[in-house]
Amino acid sequence: MENKIRICVDAMGGDNAPGQIVKGALEALEDDGRLHILLAGPLDRIKKELDGYAGSMDRLEIIDAPEIIGTDEVPTTAIRNKKNSSIVMGLNLVKENKAQAFVSAGNTGALLAGATVIVGRIKGIDRPALATLLPNARSYSLMIDSGANADVKPVYLVQFAKMGSVYMENIANRPNPKVGLINIGSEKEKGNALTKETYGLLEEAGINFTGNIESRDIPFGKADVIVCDGFVGNVILKYSEGFAEGILSMIKEELMAGTMSKIGGMLCKNSFSNLKKRFDHSEVGGAAFLGLKALVVKAHGSANAKAIRGAIRQCSSFIEQDIVNKIEESLK
Amino acid sequence: MENKIRICVDAMGGDNAPGQIVKGALEALEDDGRLHILLAGPLDRIKKELDGYAGSMDRLEIIDAPEIIGTDEVPTTAIRNKKNSSIVMGLNLVKENKAQAFVSAGNTGALLAGATVIVGRIKGIDRPALATLLPNARSYSLMIDSGANADVKPVYLVQFAKMGSVYMENIANRPNPKVGLINIGSEKEKGNALTKETYGLLEEAGINFTGNIESRDIPFGKADVIVCDGFVGNVILKYSEGFAEGILSMIKEELMAGTMSKIGGMLCKNSFSNLKKRFDHSEVGGAAFLGLKALVVKAHGSANAKAIRGAIRQCSSFIEQDIVNKIEESLK
Repeated sequence: MENKIRICVDAMGGDNAPGQIVKGALEALEDDGRLHILLAGPLDRIKKELDGYAGSMDRLEIIDAPEIIGTDEVPTTAIRNKKNSSIVMGLNLVKENKAQAFVSAGNTGALLAGATVIVGRIKGIDRPALATLLPNARSYSLMIDSGANADVKPVYLVQFAKMGSVYMENIANRPNPKVGLINIGSEKEKGNALTKETYGLLEEAGINFTGNIESRDIPFGKADVIVCDGFVGNVILKYSEGFAEGILSMIKEELMAGTMSKIGGMLCKNSFSNLKKRFDHSEVGGAAFLGLKALVVKAHGSANAKAIRGAIRQCSSFIEQDIVNKIEESLK
Repeated sequence: MENKIRICVDAMGGDNAPGQIVKGALEALEDDGRLHILLAGPLDRIKKELDGYAGSMDRLEIIDAPEIIGTDEVPTTAIRNKKNSSIVMGLNLVKENKAQAFVSAGNTGALLAGATVIVGRIKGIDRPALATLLPNARSYSLMIDSGANADVKPVYLVQFAKMGSVYMENIANRPNPKVGLINIGSEKEKGNALTKETYGLLEEAGINFTGNIESRDIPFGKADVIVCDGFVGNVILKYSEGFAEGILSMIKEELMAGTMSKIGGMLCKNSFSNLKKRFDHSEVGGAAFLGLKALVVKAHGSANAKAIRGAIRQCSSFIEQDIVNKIEESLK
């Protein structure tokens, strides 16, 4: 019983639900014998997906959640009105300690709003924040906040920095992780009102604050944890996605323009698919919503089975490393 | 006399000054017989650079500016104390109508602060803004503000949008240019306090406002003019630079990893250099500082002769199209 890991997965969230979600959950069960998965969604739809599957059914439980929150619904209203949705039911399972983590690829706003209200914040955290692993030329940096809080105060950024440090130290195994503040200049006095005030606070936060990081340095992995407000973080995150896609289509265009390069392109095919893989969010899993009393992970809206499997694996190490308690410790 | 175009160029600005700057200015003179260039910098250093040059010297004038503003100097102090610097003298020439535009690759803060104080703002513009052409999969979008104003108000963004529209309509020949507000969601009610308030104002601004644009859509050229505050714009601009560089080094790494791909890479060499060219800022010229009574262009700190030549060409069409007056008109 001690080593059991219980994770609730929202079977109805995202563009590829429920098929890919259920598939990813089943694959995760095969990966790890300690894992128990609670699949939340309409009973009949999940049953249909499980039809013919003969795997580790003893470690799979269906949570009948007949209501569905659409991507366009107003978050707070949806959370209030749809008590029998997979998001609300999943978050309640986490709150009641019947699951240790909840993974959803559904309505981001509803998930974040619901998580804050239902699961609740850690003492010392004003605003939970989304922490996303961003690929770079070396490996990954953790960007926090990548979209939960569009308007922030300097003290929030300090809390983000502390949570990000705990994450990278324990999950990514980077001792004394370097923390950079995203800014538009390297000098202390540069930036907007927010970053100018935050700089001094980060210097005294008891973390390995290495100063400002300009966005041009992000792709080179100059910091382990990059701190910003959720507006800037979301802009960077989505720009990465678009840019990687855009540049790959531009490469294709250039290669197709000549005979030599067409042949060359064919010979390079593997290299390009490796490159694509480095920017593939499904390799990373999901974004952890840090600062709550338990783990909630937002998987990408276009998450496929591999991404869900990755997100579940991510939850397991999060739970094993007892990150929630370590974050609480770091705030004392 | 009527068709003369007089542009002052800061010979001392940027990493490659004065050599590349002077070279670029001389090349621009060869491009366009109407052009007269005033090169500002220490007389002896410029003379040395011009040594042996036998081109269109009759259309070149040296403005002796013995003082130099370094990249690390505090902008306002530098502008106040170094009246004989190329930046201050160049801006004064523009103010006194002895030159129609000023191009500098020097200290950005000093250039922007000096330009606002010396050249002065157009009536109806609260804050001049940097307008930068950002390459995308189709061609270019104009991003405004790309770094002049880290903290803004909604009305400033509306002014940026109007100025950007005039620019793209007249310089880039895009009738009724599409204006997008950079935001973290496509719906009107998404974003931070700034964008939420700005949205409604843009709807009533008499421009072709097409709504929010998410950063993932920027590389696909979804809008002709993309509007944001200078913090977000600068983050996007520098991220583009870093990302393009980072991804090209990642491609190289992947190609070198296998024998087949190495050969393939050699066959694709031209395609890659074409791609590199698409992201090369020296192809674009400089960033126009819009909202002033005359044109001031900030060339990239690493500008080479080609970039300076491009920036001067950009100034010529700006002057020909009478953009300053057209911006003033658009604000009435």
